[in-house]
Amino acid sequence: MKCTRCRAKAEVHLRAHNAGFCRPCYLTYFRRQVERAIAGDRMCITAERVLVAVSGGKDSLALWDVLIDLGYQTTGLYLAQGIGGYSDRSRQKVEAFASARALPLRVVDLADEGPGLAIPDVAALTRRSACSACGMLKRHFFDEAALAGEFDVLATGHNLDDEAARLLGNVLRWQVDHLVRQRPVLPPTHPRFVRKVKPLHLLSEYETAVYAFMRGIDYVVEECPNSVGATQLLYKDALNRLEAASPGTKLAFVREFHRRGQPAITARAEDDQRPPQTCARCGMPSWGDVCAFCKLVAEIETKRARGVTGPAA
Amino acid sequence: MKCTRCRAKAEVHLRAHNAGFCRPCYLTYFRRQVERAIAGDRMCITAERVLVAVSGGKDSLALWDVLIDLGYQTTGLYLAQGIGGYSDRSRQKVEAFASARALPLRVVDLADEGPGLAIPDVAALTRRSACSACGMLKRHFFDEAALAGEFDVLATGHNLDDEAARLLGNVLRWQVDHLVRQRPVLPPTHPRFVRKVKPLHLLSEYETAVYAFMRGIDYVVEECPNSVGATQLLYKDALNRLEAASPGTKLAFVREFHRRGQPAITARAEDDQRPPQTCARCGMPSWGDVCAFCKLVAEIETKRARGVTGPAA
Repeated sequence: MKCTRCRAKAEVHLRAHNAGFCRPCYLTYFRRQVERAIAGDRMCITAERVLVAVSGGKDSLALWDVLIDLGYQTTGLYLAQGIGGYSDRSRQKVEAFASARALPLRVVDLADEGPGLAIPDVAALTRRSACSACGMLKRHFFDEAALAGEFDVLATGHNLDDEAARLLGNVLRWQVDHLVRQRPVLPPTHPRFVRKVKPLHLLSEYETAVYAFMRGIDYVVEECPNSVGATQLLYKDALNRLEAASPGTKLAFVREFHRRGQPAITARAEDDQRPPQTCARCGMPSWGDVCAFCKLVAEIETKRARGVTGPAA
Repeated sequence: MKCTRCRAKAEVHLRAHNAGFCRPCYLTYFRRQVERAIAGDRMCITAERVLVAVSGGKDSLALWDVLIDLGYQTTGLYLAQGIGGYSDRSRQKVEAFASARALPLRVVDLADEGPGLAIPDVAALTRRSACSACGMLKRHFFDEAALAGEFDVLATGHNLDDEAARLLGNVLRWQVDHLVRQRPVLPPTHPRFVRKVKPLHLLSEYETAVYAFMRGIDYVVEECPNSVGATQLLYKDALNRLEAASPGTKLAFVREFHRRGQPAITARAEDDQRPPQTCARCGMPSWGDVCAFCKLVAEIETKRARGVTGPAA
């Protein structure tokens, strides 16, 4: 196969796009796709200060890499989750990436926050699953990092496979409220928060992996050990089978959702946008008297004080 | 496992419902599910005359069986598609079912209609695939059978697996117009047509197979040879995998679509309900000067007159 742009020998074949690229043209293609997503959805402009949430995986490091290339002022944000060797290794990758490029990086170590919030401890001391605890704590610390007014936007590395799997999950249960909120640009829910953007939302996992490989990015290949058997992986598998039989299925699913499905759904469901209150404990925006994060912290403090170490046997 | 209703030994286990049934209780359960679907969606009442579209497969024969049991006045309608041995065998099953129960049955033989409309001929002489030709001819002859005013409603045997697969296909491409029209009760699109209902739309393929088996219904087990590799089967396979990992997925997908997804989508998309015209050739309701069926017939007549027997080699 020949490169769709320059007719040289292609190194990558993208069946969903019915296109092939040599290495230089692939990198150009990838950057342009990110640029187009950012411009098309008005995610951010180069004058804005971007906080990039990085996990050490290929998607978030590829995102950071391409944002720098496109001229954005970026700071990395890494959340150390305390998930044993996996967290150690992913932190090393993130720190090596940032120091090799002299990029500013912030690290939040969950074990040092509040009563000690490493994911395994939170999961053991509360009724939450590790994945639910992790999602909630990510949201909290991402929002908090933006509170001081130093950043205009938070960027995450969610790719097409992530978005398609989440969309399939929302659609299988017709969670209309979730469908309304699944967007590549989430406006801030409070004046003190910043908007969240997903510049890679139309680029597949395969495409970001190829980009990371070609750019020599050293990333954590292993998946989080808690993700084994996660429903998300089941949805990804189902979508990958459909994609194999009909290339372009995932892209059409997500793109047509934003073009046609979501506008049709949104009109009705936009009402339940209650204005947020302020948390009586931490002062962060909250949808109750005390925010969900402070409720969790209080629960853990209580259990630690009682000497509880995990669920009753 | 014990029967959920009577505590006898269960013969069937329905994971999606977390229930088990002995044979008599399963038959009661199945009939009640059909009754509830008919009543809940106001499909029909026993005073109405029901035309049941039967293919010879388990779903349509199970439907006919249970409708009689529930006290409906029914007539069967079989469309002989001319698909070789498959059509011969399915016709035999339908005729045997009807004569054993002394039920009225109408047979439309496509080979005897117009210029000869057996599916293989239509597919060979036009650009349509066999499945597309079949769908179009079914719609035409089902509508036509109801024209004379002898029936109040047309019932088809679409089951949960059919509806879930169709819904997945519509959702993967976000075909909003199709999503709006996918309903267990389709009101007539013209005063001369009757409404169409799908009383089995929440009962799985497995549930109808068990019912047909327990009732001793002799049905065509083989699938239509044209369905091999059909996209519909790909969607069914994807949904079956999700169902195996999380029983109840298919039922929730279809039920919540009707409860939440479709009402959210419908408001906006209801506008393009153009009033039908009348076909200048056959006088049936039409969305153009000549209806799609008459266009097809004219194409075949022209090609037959020219001695064309199939696509140019």
